[in-house]
Amino acid sequence: MDINETLDSLRNEINGLKDARKNKLSMVVFSGDMDKLLASFVIATGAVAMGMEVVMFFTFWGTTALRDKKKRARGKDIFGKMFGFMLPKGTTKVRLSKMNMGGSGTAMMKYLMKKKNVSSLEEMIELAGELGVKIYICEMSMDLMGMKPEEMIDYPGIEIAGVAKFLEDAGESSVQLFI
Amino acid sequence: MDINETLDSLRNEINGLKDARKNKLSMVVFSGDMDKLLASFVIATGAVAMGMEVVMFFTFWGTTALRDKKKRARGKDIFGKMFGFMLPKGTTKVRLSKMNMGGSGTAMMKYLMKKKNVSSLEEMIELAGELGVKIYICEMSMDLMGMKPEEMIDYPGIEIAGVAKFLEDAGESSVQLFI
Amino acid sequence: MDINETLDSLRNEINGLKDARKNKLSMVVFSGDMDKLLASFVIATGAVAMGMEVVMFFTFWGTTALRDKKKRARGKDIFGKMFGFMLPKGTTKVRLSKMNMGGSGTAMMKYLMKKKNVSSLEEMIELAGELGVKIYICEMSMDLMGMKPEEMIDYPGIEIAGVAKFLEDAGESSVQLFI
Repeated sequence: MDINETLDSLRNEINGLKDARKNKLSMVVFSGDMDKLLASFVIATGAVAMGMEVVMFFTFWGTTALRDKKKRARGKDIFGKMFGFMLPKGTTKVRLSKMNMGGSGTAMMKYLMKKKNVSSLEEMIELAGELGVKIYICEMSMDLMGMKPEEMIDYPGIEIAGVAKFLEDAGESSVQLFI
Repeated sequence: MDINETLDSLRNEINGLKDARKNKLSMVVFSGDMDKLLASFVIATGAVAMGMEVVMFFTFWGTTALRDKKKRARGKDIFGKMFGFMLPKGTTKVRLSKMNMGGSGTAMMKYLMKKKNVSSLEEMIELAGELGVKIYICEMSMDLMGMKPEEMIDYPGIEIAGVAKFLEDAGESSVQLFI
Repeated sequence: MDINETLDSLRNEINGLKDARKNKLSMVVFSGDMDKLLASFVIATGAVAMGMEVVMFFTFWGTTALRDKKKRARGKDIFGKMFGFMLPKGTTKVRLSKMNMGGSGTAMMKYLMKKKNVSSLEEMIELAGELGVKIYICEMSMDLMGMKPEEMIDYPGIEIAGVAKFLEDAGESSVQLFI
């Protein structure tokens, strides 16, 4: 093989390695607890601010945080209605995983966040959307819990996807977290 | 140094980088909750289907999911017997982390999974075994909880290992998760 | 471009890729549960023993484990005092996430750890400090919970930092976990 061909092949391999690990963060947001949701959005918006590409994949209890409290979905079966009734409807209803104390712990945390000038969860989600954080909602979770696309929040580019989408993103990310 | 030697050394370095980050997923399964166990096996089987090598490292409460409800271990001390009695014995006994509601939430989820054609946890574990997902059980956890190898499920290639084994696998994986 | 320049540029790119993924572990310790704290320090000390650089970033409930039970902070506002009173003060007060059973499950676990020669959480933290595990405490969490630097444990090189610090470390780590 000629020297220039060899150099080209080495360069290609190096570029392949670069593509295999981008400056990118992929997160599974499994939890629907207020504290973990806060952590995930603080990390997400912080990462975008540092120039990283960010993808969040909401699954299981996490999906409940993305419901829009003003929207309703029709044609749900009995289980969909039950889940819809029992699970928190959107970010304003999510609770702390510890010290919720019948809601007073969560209320105290919200009060403190306001007082200390920490953005609320709703503000963080809006900011994330403006900054280009990509959000996927897990197809299987929505199907299991009987949630419908029309009851989810308006968020730029929000999509429903399967586990393969997450793995594809995670595989080329420099950072991956399961929250 | 001669040009061909230089090229060879660069090629070696590139191959070293490839080995340092394989198309591989390593997971710590710390949780013994049904929902998180489901998530871990959905991710594991999905990853194998995409051509990734997959290693799961079960530790702490996660180990309880790998107990075989039909097997018994002899010669346990009092603490081993207590843990054995109090902790869920295998996948059929694990519960949701939220909305368990005295078992009815977990039962509803199982019913829905069947109805929506989502494999049960037992079926997913069997599939994972057939697909070659490697499972390690944490040595320290088994020791602490007084569990014995002879009470764990039959799973192809299942092994007991220490934290070093996980770190070795995780270090060369493109994706790592703590669930 | 001359052949030697080309070789140098390839070598530089390879070195860049090496720097982008060091033999390093970055962990977010979000949980304040005894079992998860144990897992994080078992992984941290195990990783250092294998020659990895280790960084732990304590946030939210995790920060409570780093409080020194003998130290007091002055000038806290009413919320800081409330959190200070309600949250566990240091490692000796943290509890299991499951099977705490009014404290008896946690006590049993501590007894078993001693009996089976597993280091206590306090001993693990001390060992981590001696081995050079770097600990950061999340600035926003401390601010929200009204915790003060002077009430945290003595630990070599402990620092308060923001989310950007974690992302910087995680981005160049071969392994990242959210615990």
